[in-house]
Amino acid sequence: TQPAFASNWLMLQGTEAEHQAPRAKLWGFIHTEYQSTGNTKLKAGPFAGTEAAFNQIAPQLESSQTFNIRRARIGVRGNNFPLDSKVNYFLLAEFGNNGITTGGDASRGQLTDASVTLNHIPGARVRIGMFKTPGAEEGLQAAPVFNYVNFTNVTDRLLMERSFDNSTGNTGRNGPVGAFRDTGVQVFDAFKHNDWELSYAVMFGNGSGTSLTDNDNHQDVYLYGSAEKIFGNSKGPRRHGLKMFAWMQNGKRTLNDVGDVDRKRSGLGTTYFDGKYRVAAEYITADGMIYGGTSGAGTPDNGATFSVQPDEKAKGYYLDLGYRVIPNLELNLRYDFLDSGTEIAANHREFQTTTLGAQYFFNKKTAIRFNYEMRSIDAPDLASTHPVHQILDSIDDRISAQLSIVF
Amino acid sequence: TQPAFASNWLMLQGTEAEHQAPRAKLWGFIHTEYQSTGNTKLKAGPFAGTEAAFNQIAPQLESSQTFNIRRARIGVRGNNFPLDSKVNYFLLAEFGNNGITTGGDASRGQLTDASVTLNHIPGARVRIGMFKTPGAEEGLQAAPVFNYVNFTNVTDRLLMERSFDNSTGNTGRNGPVGAFRDTGVQVFDAFKHNDWELSYAVMFGNGSGTSLTDNDNHQDVYLYGSAEKIFGNSKGPRRHGLKMFAWMQNGKRTLNDVGDVDRKRSGLGTTYFDGKYRVAAEYITADGMIYGGTSGAGTPDNGATFSVQPDEKAKGYYLDLGYRVIPNLELNLRYDFLDSGTEIAANHREFQTTTLGAQYFFNKKTAIRFNYEMRSIDAPDLASTHPVHQILDSIDDRISAQLSIVF
Amino acid sequence: TQPAFASNWLMLQGTEAEHQAPRAKLWGFIHTEYQSTGNTKLKAGPFAGTEAAFNQIAPQLESSQTFNIRRARIGVRGNNFPLDSKVNYFLLAEFGNNGITTGGDASRGQLTDASVTLNHIPGARVRIGMFKTPGAEEGLQAAPVFNYVNFTNVTDRLLMERSFDNSTGNTGRNGPVGAFRDTGVQVFDAFKHNDWELSYAVMFGNGSGTSLTDNDNHQDVYLYGSAEKIFGNSKGPRRHGLKMFAWMQNGKRTLNDVGDVDRKRSGLGTTYFDGKYRVAAEYITADGMIYGGTSGAGTPDNGATFSVQPDEKAKGYYLDLGYRVIPNLELNLRYDFLDSGTEIAANHREFQTTTLGAQYFFNKKTAIRFNYEMRSIDAPDLASTHPVHQILDSIDDRISAQLSIVF
Repeated sequence: TQPAFASNWLMLQGTEAEHQAPRAKLWGFIHTEYQSTGNTKLKAGPFAGTEAAFNQIAPQLESSQTFNIRRARIGVRGNNFPLDSKVNYFLLAEFGNNGITTGGDASRGQLTDASVTLNHIPGARVRIGMFKTPGAEEGLQAAPVFNYVNFTNVTDRLLMERSFDNSTGNTGRNGPVGAFRDTGVQVFDAFKHNDWELSYAVMFGNGSGTSLTDNDNHQDVYLYGSAEKIFGNSKGPRRHGLKMFAWMQNGKRTLNDVGDVDRKRSGLGTTYFDGKYRVAAEYITADGMIYGGTSGAGTPDNGATFSVQPDEKAKGYYLDLGYRVIPNLELNLRYDFLDSGTEIAANHREFQTTTLGAQYFFNKKTAIRFNYEMRSIDAPDLASTHPVHQILDSIDDRISAQLSIVF
Repeated sequence: TQPAFASNWLMLQGTEAEHQAPRAKLWGFIHTEYQSTGNTKLKAGPFAGTEAAFNQIAPQLESSQTFNIRRARIGVRGNNFPLDSKVNYFLLAEFGNNGITTGGDASRGQLTDASVTLNHIPGARVRIGMFKTPGAEEGLQAAPVFNYVNFTNVTDRLLMERSFDNSTGNTGRNGPVGAFRDTGVQVFDAFKHNDWELSYAVMFGNGSGTSLTDNDNHQDVYLYGSAEKIFGNSKGPRRHGLKMFAWMQNGKRTLNDVGDVDRKRSGLGTTYFDGKYRVAAEYITADGMIYGGTSGAGTPDNGATFSVQPDEKAKGYYLDLGYRVIPNLELNLRYDFLDSGTEIAANHREFQTTTLGAQYFFNKKTAIRFNYEMRSIDAPDLASTHPVHQILDSIDDRISAQLSIVF
Repeated sequence: TQPAFASNWLMLQGTEAEHQAPRAKLWGFIHTEYQSTGNTKLKAGPFAGTEAAFNQIAPQLESSQTFNIRRARIGVRGNNFPLDSKVNYFLLAEFGNNGITTGGDASRGQLTDASVTLNHIPGARVRIGMFKTPGAEEGLQAAPVFNYVNFTNVTDRLLMERSFDNSTGNTGRNGPVGAFRDTGVQVFDAFKHNDWELSYAVMFGNGSGTSLTDNDNHQDVYLYGSAEKIFGNSKGPRRHGLKMFAWMQNGKRTLNDVGDVDRKRSGLGTTYFDGKYRVAAEYITADGMIYGGTSGAGTPDNGATFSVQPDEKAKGYYLDLGYRVIPNLELNLRYDFLDSGTEIAANHREFQTTTLGAQYFFNKKTAIRFNYEMRSIDAPDLASTHPVHQILDSIDDRISAQLSIVF
């Protein structure tokens, strides 16, 4: 059994029973990728004729096609056994090339997780340090078992937090992306009741993502609850079951030019997997600060700058279907929709992506994924003569392949 | 037995006997913390009304309270056994957020230790690479068994070296802090005589701290000697004994605006531990370059700059007491005093901190610490009407909690 | 046996048989060094009287003598056994101080290797990720068994790629050095025929060295072939045999001021080792972009800038001899010659270095090396009155010592 990858993500780290965790288990994973778009140039706007940011590959945005080591994580996990089976720890650092290792003072070797869990109080485990915040499934689930190469628009733009000094005119992020993480204290546990597993989590944190320290004396609060019906004696990385969950988080951010702004997020969702069919759906809302992309959809190399919308609203959802043709081959279909910047007409954008996918599992720890993303962005509140429509029409479909290994 | 943490720090790394060290032992530790002050604003001076650097949490100085992963170190140690029991190595990198991973070209994943020890010559072991220099107990001791959250003033300001380009006007450090380390060659050994253990060390190094390479063709020299009476058959991380030691180091540094300056340090001290009572005391002197703090005690974010005093003197000491109420709970009291910049009235400051502490040991490798630091700084040579007194009066007490785990 | 270090470098990573590779083997190596020159100042040119770049120690070029942790690599390798013996992976990160961890956004903890090998197709193993490109022996061989401290001129200047924004006026590299690596896909295998082992490799990559992602939508192609006669049942890190090989690579680079330029390299060579005598020789040619050094041979600290020659040619070779006086002691002699910038008189330089060396092997995994390099550079096409001759006459011999350990 591999309880470390049980699909109750809250319980996957720091709660190993004594016979399951050695003093120091070396572990990690590699995601090596190739992505490509048609590199259609911007058809209008201040950067007309130059590369479109949305047709370049993140995080450098310098090429429309590239091989990349998207993730290369090395970590150590374990408990103090035989000294003390009630104390667990979890360490993980990122050596790949993505939003965690770029921006501001971020670098290769960026720490993504460092926590200690104290399992002394029945019903109230305490986790202290930096770790994934209790929240949306797409962010909370373990990256090695993510079924697609790229995140949905709603997760990427509402939950994958980018931090900037100002609301506009930023030449780049001032630090690593949040990566669905924060540094703080979480009280949590899961309870079995017949076939059902009920979980809760409450967390207080800096609200500083993977940057480790607070920069404004404001703290974030996180709440999470879930209920999962487990099918049979299913265990392991891809447990069979039906799960429902809801969550919210509430914090403040400080921008040099605007001052303190709110950042609220909430959501609910469900996952289902019976070994042959897999279904996942989430609905997510945002209130307060929202990522705004680059000016005119240009690239930083061509002089475009990044913005955030300090006080906006957004909502979105996705529906993800999986079908195992044979045990080693899963076909995937995902539709995601994001309605962002709904309060101000100039901000309002509708992002839609339909993703066709296939995953082949060489074994339980090695998989190759192919994705084809059909992408569109609309600006529904702007006149049809506005150049934004031509800019957004420049967006290409994107193909990607990923080889994933866990060790 | 865990000889790796024997309290003779000189001998704790690179000297493992063949049956004690595997080919490659993965190890490390995590210090996850919360610190907070009252965030009293500066009462006078050029930065009056803004945040005081001494009331912000290091190393970012951007918040007066924060959770932080202060240390997250991953390393490998071992010997070549079964090939050759006389060669040992020691590797350690820092992934946490502190002075080692900030400043200049420093980054997460900064190497703190990389050395090879050749144990071929009786009485003269040779260690080559980067490692802790033989010196003051507070710096030389292993971080996981340090009994407080923060260093004393005398260690922090005289021994924890910050490197800058110039003597004044620096917007930040030009590299990582020295972290009591250097790159070079050390000849050392320890000798048992009845209950006594006598040790010596001589080292030559770049004088470049954790920056790895020399930047000025000057080298530092380090000398160290100690004698410890060991009580009974005591071993392990917190060996019982009475130790006395003395040390000195001598080097030069190069500042762009001033040129070559001296940097001399020396000290002596004692430690005592019998399982119930613990006493440590050190006296340290400095001659030459001394860290000068920020202008007007302001923060870098508000425009204050860092300085060093190129040719000054300082001396200080601390007295640290521990009492084990029960085997798992130690109460601590520490008083430290630093008399810095004694040659020039404008530089002269007296730092005093009294620290109340408690440590609870969940097990031999996991502890939680709570500290309350009562802090004051005085400028004894300046007229009572000088605004410096109001600036220094802005300093708050500081509370801190740290969860520490070694794996 | 240690097949991981078999001298067929193509096969040393990712092809371990199932009984040879655990799930996750922690490994790495340390190279701790001391290097020194006479620090002769430049005798002419714009930087006359100041430090000469070629007399300073890389990569900082701030001192003519220094201790350094040149390499400190920590990695994980293994296969999925017992799940699946056909999938291997290889991860390695650099924590030392060299060209990989300096320049642009490079940092300590820089990833050097992250690849997954799929060994499913007979005769066509597939390796995906970042790894050493199939090419010259001096670059492709494992660093821990390199017989000298420093690279030959031909390898250092033609194959160790430095990346810059422009052809001239660069204050520093814009990223890590290439380190003989690229990110992409390689198809390769080796075939035994009696005593002979025949190997081939074909690779496509970003052409971005250790920077992980492409920056210009151009890809590099690499070809390699070798034939080795193996002596007896020799195995392990320093297998006995006679090998012949040839290789080429072809790509493009983009400079802001010049645009797209070619970068072509090719070569052939041989190695011989019978346990007592060792011979290696390579011939290498370059066409297209070539590294041009610093202006006036000055140092960056004194204002000199780096250049590349966008469209030049070069060729060079080395001859390396080793003799084992006793099994643990090898004496070395190496002569290398580089004829660089042969198309334009102002670019034309002849680099010659004769290296005397000795290596003492404490055991199979620990060695100490001493090198004395007699160096000269000439500008054969410039008039004898040109100041370049005095500049180049400033070059010193260089001494170096290296302690090397593999774990």
